[in-house]
Amino acid sequence: MEMETSETPKTCYKSAKFEAPNQRQVVRKGRPQPLETRGSMSSSTLIGRFEAVRTRTVDLVSSLSPEDQQIQGPDFASPTKWHLAHTTWFFETFLLRPHAAAPRLAPDAWGLLFNSYYESLGARHPRLARGLLSRPGLEEVMAWRASVDAQLARLIAHRDGPDFTALVELGLAHEEQHQELILTDLLANFALNPTDPAWRVAAGPLGSPPGAPGWASFDGGLVSVGTDGPGFRFDNEGPAHRVWLEPFALRVAPVSNAEVLALIEAGGYADPRLWLSDGIAWVREHGIEAPEYWRRDLDGWTTLSLYGRHPVDLLAPVCHVSAYEADAIATWLGARLPTEFEWEHAAARVGGPPSQGRWQGQGPTRPQHTGAASQDPLHNLWGEVWAWTRSSYLPYPGYRPLPGAVGEYNGKFMSVQWVLRGGSCATPPGHLRTTYRNFFYPQQRWQFAGLRLAR
Amino acid sequence: MEMETSETPKTCYKSAKFEAPNQRQVVRKGRPQPLETRGSMSSSTLIGRFEAVRTRTVDLVSSLSPEDQQIQGPDFASPTKWHLAHTTWFFETFLLRPHAAAPRLAPDAWGLLFNSYYESLGARHPRLARGLLSRPGLEEVMAWRASVDAQLARLIAHRDGPDFTALVELGLAHEEQHQELILTDLLANFALNPTDPAWRVAAGPLGSPPGAPGWASFDGGLVSVGTDGPGFRFDNEGPAHRVWLEPFALRVAPVSNAEVLALIEAGGYADPRLWLSDGIAWVREHGIEAPEYWRRDLDGWTTLSLYGRHPVDLLAPVCHVSAYEADAIATWLGARLPTEFEWEHAAARVGGPPSQGRWQGQGPTRPQHTGAASQDPLHNLWGEVWAWTRSSYLPYPGYRPLPGAVGEYNGKFMSVQWVLRGGSCATPPGHLRTTYRNFFYPQQRWQFAGLRLAR
Amino acid sequence: MEMETSETPKTCYKSAKFEAPNQRQVVRKGRPQPLETRGSMSSSTLIGRFEAVRTRTVDLVSSLSPEDQQIQGPDFASPTKWHLAHTTWFFETFLLRPHAAAPRLAPDAWGLLFNSYYESLGARHPRLARGLLSRPGLEEVMAWRASVDAQLARLIAHRDGPDFTALVELGLAHEEQHQELILTDLLANFALNPTDPAWRVAAGPLGSPPGAPGWASFDGGLVSVGTDGPGFRFDNEGPAHRVWLEPFALRVAPVSNAEVLALIEAGGYADPRLWLSDGIAWVREHGIEAPEYWRRDLDGWTTLSLYGRHPVDLLAPVCHVSAYEADAIATWLGARLPTEFEWEHAAARVGGPPSQGRWQGQGPTRPQHTGAASQDPLHNLWGEVWAWTRSSYLPYPGYRPLPGAVGEYNGKFMSVQWVLRGGSCATPPGHLRTTYRNFFYPQQRWQFAGLRLAR
Amino acid sequence: MEMETSETPKTCYKSAKFEAPNQRQVVRKGRPQPLETRGSMSSSTLIGRFEAVRTRTVDLVSSLSPEDQQIQGPDFASPTKWHLAHTTWFFETFLLRPHAAAPRLAPDAWGLLFNSYYESLGARHPRLARGLLSRPGLEEVMAWRASVDAQLARLIAHRDGPDFTALVELGLAHEEQHQELILTDLLANFALNPTDPAWRVAAGPLGSPPGAPGWASFDGGLVSVGTDGPGFRFDNEGPAHRVWLEPFALRVAPVSNAEVLALIEAGGYADPRLWLSDGIAWVREHGIEAPEYWRRDLDGWTTLSLYGRHPVDLLAPVCHVSAYEADAIATWLGARLPTEFEWEHAAARVGGPPSQGRWQGQGPTRPQHTGAASQDPLHNLWGEVWAWTRSSYLPYPGYRPLPGAVGEYNGKFMSVQWVLRGGSCATPPGHLRTTYRNFFYPQQRWQFAGLRLAR
Repeated sequence: MEMETSETPKTCYKSAKFEAPNQRQVVRKGRPQPLETRGSMSSSTLIGRFEAVRTRTVDLVSSLSPEDQQIQGPDFASPTKWHLAHTTWFFETFLLRPHAAAPRLAPDAWGLLFNSYYESLGARHPRLARGLLSRPGLEEVMAWRASVDAQLARLIAHRDGPDFTALVELGLAHEEQHQELILTDLLANFALNPTDPAWRVAAGPLGSPPGAPGWASFDGGLVSVGTDGPGFRFDNEGPAHRVWLEPFALRVAPVSNAEVLALIEAGGYADPRLWLSDGIAWVREHGIEAPEYWRRDLDGWTTLSLYGRHPVDLLAPVCHVSAYEADAIATWLGARLPTEFEWEHAAARVGGPPSQGRWQGQGPTRPQHTGAASQDPLHNLWGEVWAWTRSSYLPYPGYRPLPGAVGEYNGKFMSVQWVLRGGSCATPPGHLRTTYRNFFYPQQRWQFAGLRLAR
Repeated sequence: MEMETSETPKTCYKSAKFEAPNQRQVVRKGRPQPLETRGSMSSSTLIGRFEAVRTRTVDLVSSLSPEDQQIQGPDFASPTKWHLAHTTWFFETFLLRPHAAAPRLAPDAWGLLFNSYYESLGARHPRLARGLLSRPGLEEVMAWRASVDAQLARLIAHRDGPDFTALVELGLAHEEQHQELILTDLLANFALNPTDPAWRVAAGPLGSPPGAPGWASFDGGLVSVGTDGPGFRFDNEGPAHRVWLEPFALRVAPVSNAEVLALIEAGGYADPRLWLSDGIAWVREHGIEAPEYWRRDLDGWTTLSLYGRHPVDLLAPVCHVSAYEADAIATWLGARLPTEFEWEHAAARVGGPPSQGRWQGQGPTRPQHTGAASQDPLHNLWGEVWAWTRSSYLPYPGYRPLPGAVGEYNGKFMSVQWVLRGGSCATPPGHLRTTYRNFFYPQQRWQFAGLRLAR
Repeated sequence: MEMETSETPKTCYKSAKFEAPNQRQVVRKGRPQPLETRGSMSSSTLIGRFEAVRTRTVDLVSSLSPEDQQIQGPDFASPTKWHLAHTTWFFETFLLRPHAAAPRLAPDAWGLLFNSYYESLGARHPRLARGLLSRPGLEEVMAWRASVDAQLARLIAHRDGPDFTALVELGLAHEEQHQELILTDLLANFALNPTDPAWRVAAGPLGSPPGAPGWASFDGGLVSVGTDGPGFRFDNEGPAHRVWLEPFALRVAPVSNAEVLALIEAGGYADPRLWLSDGIAWVREHGIEAPEYWRRDLDGWTTLSLYGRHPVDLLAPVCHVSAYEADAIATWLGARLPTEFEWEHAAARVGGPPSQGRWQGQGPTRPQHTGAASQDPLHNLWGEVWAWTRSSYLPYPGYRPLPGAVGEYNGKFMSVQWVLRGGSCATPPGHLRTTYRNFFYPQQRWQFAGLRLAR
Repeated sequence: MEMETSETPKTCYKSAKFEAPNQRQVVRKGRPQPLETRGSMSSSTLIGRFEAVRTRTVDLVSSLSPEDQQIQGPDFASPTKWHLAHTTWFFETFLLRPHAAAPRLAPDAWGLLFNSYYESLGARHPRLARGLLSRPGLEEVMAWRASVDAQLARLIAHRDGPDFTALVELGLAHEEQHQELILTDLLANFALNPTDPAWRVAAGPLGSPPGAPGWASFDGGLVSVGTDGPGFRFDNEGPAHRVWLEPFALRVAPVSNAEVLALIEAGGYADPRLWLSDGIAWVREHGIEAPEYWRRDLDGWTTLSLYGRHPVDLLAPVCHVSAYEADAIATWLGARLPTEFEWEHAAARVGGPPSQGRWQGQGPTRPQHTGAASQDPLHNLWGEVWAWTRSSYLPYPGYRPLPGAVGEYNGKFMSVQWVLRGGSCATPPGHLRTTYRNFFYPQQRWQFAGLRLAR
């Protein structure tokens, strides 16, 4: 989502856009394309899931005032209210209007305001001006949301078929992505208030010390990656194909804050030998000295999380680093980042199911080290922090734009972004897959992104 | 007020800053300097005036939601909530703390947030990030405001003396300036919402057609301008001194929207012959084609006012033009802008008292032509729209920085800004004087600023 | 000259433009307007003067290589070769073509390249790209220059009449202005080469210590300023008119480098109490710590002059300061800048004729203190360094754009620039007048500009 | 070479940098690392090759004036004089100083001026200010060049050993890369002169019409790419490793100007469906409408080449396109770009030796279609235009920074650039290999870069 170019020419930021291809596939052609789903699902099951996902979103923001939900700091971070409206616009536009005879529930102008980046659906409000829309107010948006939900529940009760179900699934995956974005954007917005606001009252950390930083080895060879289904998946995850991997190893534990603190104290942020050329230029231009939200206070390093400002938790996986930092950290530790295929292969072999991870709502939305007690060969592979990989976000062999209008955007983000894998503690449970590819520009760091070493 | 430099290097905008010198005079020295006031005033009269002015501010914003009061569009336009907090901070900082033994009513951090540009009072929150402060919320700010008002009423009841009274007067003049800024900033913020929000429901226009565009002539000669008192005045209005004026004439009526529309249709915004060199460069860089808030719709030109979008009122004085536009308009009409001394001399001679004008709360806050029916030699000289003059904002002869720390800022805004005179329909009644000097950068146009021709 | 807006939006720099109005007056109407001259002058006298002025330009650049004459550093500083070509273009365009039946001496495209800012003469090459024009090469330009000179000498020999003579006078005044610009631009260009190139071998300083910093007092009153002629003058110098001056005093000696060094050592560049608000913002944005070209070396402050790098001469008048610095320096010294009318009145009373000053070619082109030995009431009033005044560059009363096409640019530079008076050691002899007004933006400081105190 | 970040924050341009790793390997450690060379080579052979390569550089610039060799337009395009000096600095710094007891031949300051991006060798002159260095002049640079060459010839005659030979080889490969850059930079610099300068007089085109646009198919499978030697190679070409390729086909002929012209006329530059998201943003921000140097004149499209301006040659391969354009062109033609491994595999199979191509000095330095008459399975695979691939410039498996100081930069450019293959008509003969990887940012287009379709 949200792919329009920032109007501020100096930044290259564009925000999350994970699900781009498929929903368009459905939408653009007037009638839905076949989308593979999690298999057959009864109407009542689907209604239940629909209501659960939509309710989760509202629960997430229950502690926020109208003012909190209004603000937008960085242009890549949308207001909470905008997310609430945009996901509602998505369901009204792509499900209610094509499939229900219902009258339009929102004023026409709202389409302009809450379209994220769908060029073929007309003009859009500039991304960086979302925080200026005091009207419609939060109450109006919530009332609209309730109307759309009620009509959609009725629609789901009376429609079925794999295409329709797939479309609802897509809307729900989209909503889940925005649940993560609501939190990452909120933190970025709060970070500009010197009073260090908090989303919720802090819960105690769950973390346990990582064990010895062992390594897990893999033989590589000609392995299969990607997926063609069955079950819901985004089109950037396919086609399934083979790649040749040389033998490699991944470190059992992700890189910790303690390790990054040592790097900082060793002067690593100023040492060009550790950095990619673009990375050191970015460090110098922006005066980067530590991960995002860190601050050197009189009595040590603190960070801002969704629970306000507190000391950096040395045991926890490092979070809110750019790919440039991730690469430099790996170099400093005598290792490198894995490729996305190394990560995927390892996850398929020994990573266990994603349900192993700690996800949004399962403890504090703040990365912890939680794997030491487990028998998992790779600690914190799922959840906690996204893992930057050393792979560019490029099309898989045989991936091709769909014919017709739906091809407008397919693959359009496959340019100079880097791939992340594994999800974070802000990702809703059930959202991830082994083949799931997230991607951001290498300088972006407001997501819950860290790294795992390879060699 | 609000003079810190924008952090966006491309703009030179700084916002209103009228009262700069005097309040510092009071504050910096630890004990108040003598300030001339409107003469002796009883405590109860002063309390009444204090409460009236403070209540007027709250009344102004009663139709706005918490979201409306949160937003900040251009960096020169502060959020409503910020104005409410800043004026309260001003009274707490400059009156309550030095003169009452009262404990601090706001958290320390709020000083950082709501200080506008007083460098000697410590660090400040960046001006352009005021819209990001969702916390403190509106309710907290209003509660603080009520506490400060209650304590101040008590303080006024028990204190007197000319210094103290002068300080209260200064705070009230400051509050009145922010009343105008609340409206001009709100309009600038609303203008970025494509749904054209309104502050209040539109009231019908009051305007009447201007009569024949006659001219009033003045002999000039060695005349006196400026003031040394008595009565409250800002220090930039003095010392009183003599200037030599050649004979001149002012047009009876201000320039109307109809006249500017004719200029637009004649291609005047693209004709470098009409413009100052800096002006045409500004027009080209920003793609200026009409006064601020004007839009060419299918069925004619509309504008945004505090009452939403509506057709341009051809009879009304033109408003929201920069000094560059004002100069080009005057050139196109075969005339020129008056100097500030021509304006002041004419106002002193035939302009009548400021009470003649139409001010904030006296009809719609939207310029009208109201002078035709009158016998005034100069129509709409007071209120309606500020008149740009062809004078740079420079110190009067003998004006000099005060000795000691109070000299930190004296005259610091006297650089490349232009002088405006006469007030607008957004200026509170009772605020203006014949010698009152307002000043903005020549490219700024979000104030209610128009022009009157001279020759 | 050279008034087109820089294409770099962050700078407001525009370069010298003194003679703007009059030459256009001549050109635009197809036939020359009357221009007042220094009175009747024989053809042979005029030819002699023409050849002397043109030769002086070539002499100025004789020590420079083709590469030296090619480069352009700041966009406001044109290459030497461009100046040589532009002044030639001026004579060909405004004299040869209208008055001689001669064929065009330069390719058509050169008009595009060497037009400075005359919009009505068609498109122009972007100012900041002048340094990119390796072709035409220097040899071609010099050959063109010789051809134009030869034809013009013939033309002058056979034409006369006051209009024609006035036009030649204008071209020569224009050439003289470019002689000063050649040197100021060269220094700005050399300053970007870390090897500190020199224009010529240094000559020993001529300076003598200033005497006691006495003051000269003036009564003021209703005085006359400006001129309507006779003799050549630019139109911004008129009409002559009266102004009222309060009594004032000027310091006998200009401010010296020693005084500014003391300011630097006292931390004055970081003390906002000394600065205009726009000034301190400019200091902070650009990290200004000293006058232009100064550098703090291990063994003290050095500066770059046209003779390379050498220690700052403490006795000499300070040079290469912006108006913001000049204002802050005056404040720090407990004084202020004079207005342009105070300066002019004092010069008319006691300044003596401009021939008293030290001008280009009369000793090193590097400011000295030379007045101590003299009996002049005001030392170094003429030449050495331009004196910033506290006056905005505004039209005199009764100044008005000429009718017709010639009005395209008249007065177009009278916006937010500040006036300088008195000329510099880089100004050709015979160029200045008591009424001469130079003007630059207050942040510009590559001219030979300093200050004299008033109180 | 030339990798420091531009100081202009809005551009991401960095220029050629191909040989980065190896030469440092030699330099940093104090004594040379083993570098594989083209095998044993006698001193006299090496001297001959050295003199031939150095002479080729001087021949390239023989038609240019001192002014032509001085200018720098875009910050990524260095002046010719700078290239001449930088390559000389390279030989003096990395060969003469460590291996000869010779005194320093250039002033110390020149190290600052002519170091390109070697951070460990100290401060450097800002890249974008290279065009400002009028001193040292061209004559001084050429004299220095001659001295260095003479001493180096003596050194080569008396030294041998594989390390030393490898170092000379490296210097020569470096010089060859700058030969290409001299021409691409010159064209970029000339392009800013509206008089359309030419490097040399145009030679007639050699091109022949491409035949039917056939395709060559490849089975793919597990193939070997990259090289570990023997013979000289850059370290980014290794280690040799296996990759799995799905079956693919390459079009026999590269994309022609005629095909791109058809795209332009179909509105393709404004159609977001064809573009990557970053690509359309780049097109819109910069107003891109055609390949670099193209211009729509009254009688059709022209382009600027090293021979001046002339009509676009419809038969020739398209040149001077960015990777974004290349990707959009391929999409529009119903195909895609090949990966770098598809290209390398095809070249290894059927591409023939690089000597098949047309290189610098073999006909005009301007792309032609020359393959039609041949029996080559892939026309113009070598020379003419570099082929953009759809591969990011990333490290090969097992590539790792060398230990010690030499690791400062290894791989530091492997971030978000794209790979190009095959060389151009500006590449010196003998410079390319099947495994040679060139790389630029996807928006850069001043190199001789075009594309070949894959599917």
